[in-house]
Amino acid sequence: MENSKTQTQLATVITPDELLKHWQAHRDLTRRTIVAFPEKEFFTHTIGGMRTYAKLIQEMLAIAGPGIKEIVEGKTVKFEEDELQNKKENYLKAWDETTAYLNENFPKIKLEDFHRKIKAFGQFEGTVISTIFYFMDNEIHHRGQGYVYLRSLNIEPPFFWER
Amino acid sequence: MENSKTQTQLATVITPDELLKHWQAHRDLTRRTIVAFPEKEFFTHTIGGMRTYAKLIQEMLAIAGPGIKEIVEGKTVKFEEDELQNKKENYLKAWDETTAYLNENFPKIKLEDFHRKIKAFGQFEGTVISTIFYFMDNEIHHRGQGYVYLRSLNIEPPFFWER
Repeated sequence: MENSKTQTQLATVITPDELLKHWQAHRDLTRRTIVAFPEKEFFTHTIGGMRTYAKLIQEMLAIAGPGIKEIVEGKTVKFEEDELQNKKENYLKAWDETTAYLNENFPKIKLEDFHRKIKAFGQFEGTVISTIFYFMDNEIHHRGQGYVYLRSLNIEPPFFWER
Repeated sequence: MENSKTQTQLATVITPDELLKHWQAHRDLTRRTIVAFPEKEFFTHTIGGMRTYAKLIQEMLAIAGPGIKEIVEGKTVKFEEDELQNKKENYLKAWDETTAYLNENFPKIKLEDFHRKIKAFGQFEGTVISTIFYFMDNEIHHRGQGYVYLRSLNIEPPFFWER
């Protein structure tokens, strides 16, 4: 918190700026899990018939930037996963582009927007805040699964609490 | 949102009541993952040297109730995992007790408390809101791992989006 913030401003559960920082800290941790995967296993390793970590990251990428774009611009966006040509570096590049996109566009969401009703990707009904929570929770959920993939490959994942 | 809420009340990212409901919806999903585990595997199944799902649930139980107690009462609470005698029903009972405890005590956290600085379990520095987020995120993270355990046992987990 900046010192300049008044007591009145602090009498709130969380500010939009804090929410963005919280998400970006999670996204930074997720980025480090991508880095931790061996190049090959990122695209091939699975457990119990689940998606590969590359596929899970593809989903996160298809959600975060386009999802916030939809909220900010108020136009329906189609849910589409990009093909990233099976190179981890392409995923990291796309990840960093999304990071920059969120930093630039998330602050456009005004305080009075968070309870606005929306249909994410033209399908999922909720409010702006419930939708943003869904994006974040979905990332934490699948990243937790990536941790199991890494452990099963005998690789120590980054510390969960280092954000 | 109730219709009686004014526009002014809605000009906020999230209300304390919504945050509690969000968490309890997650907790209800986590409860259903406990139910989904076979009695034996709940206590024995692991991947890559990780903790069993019983151990992960034990951690969540040691965090949620005592963590909120500490915030509400302002007294340091020790982090302690209860021994629950290797019966799934004991975990479900403890889970439901925590649910009731949170419903009763979480509303005691006042709006101006959320940015108060605290040291959770006498150790982890943060604010009330960053600490509550940690509790929730940790649950989502470990539950995601439970999903992999279930899949590796050929059991379909509950739908992540059904909350």
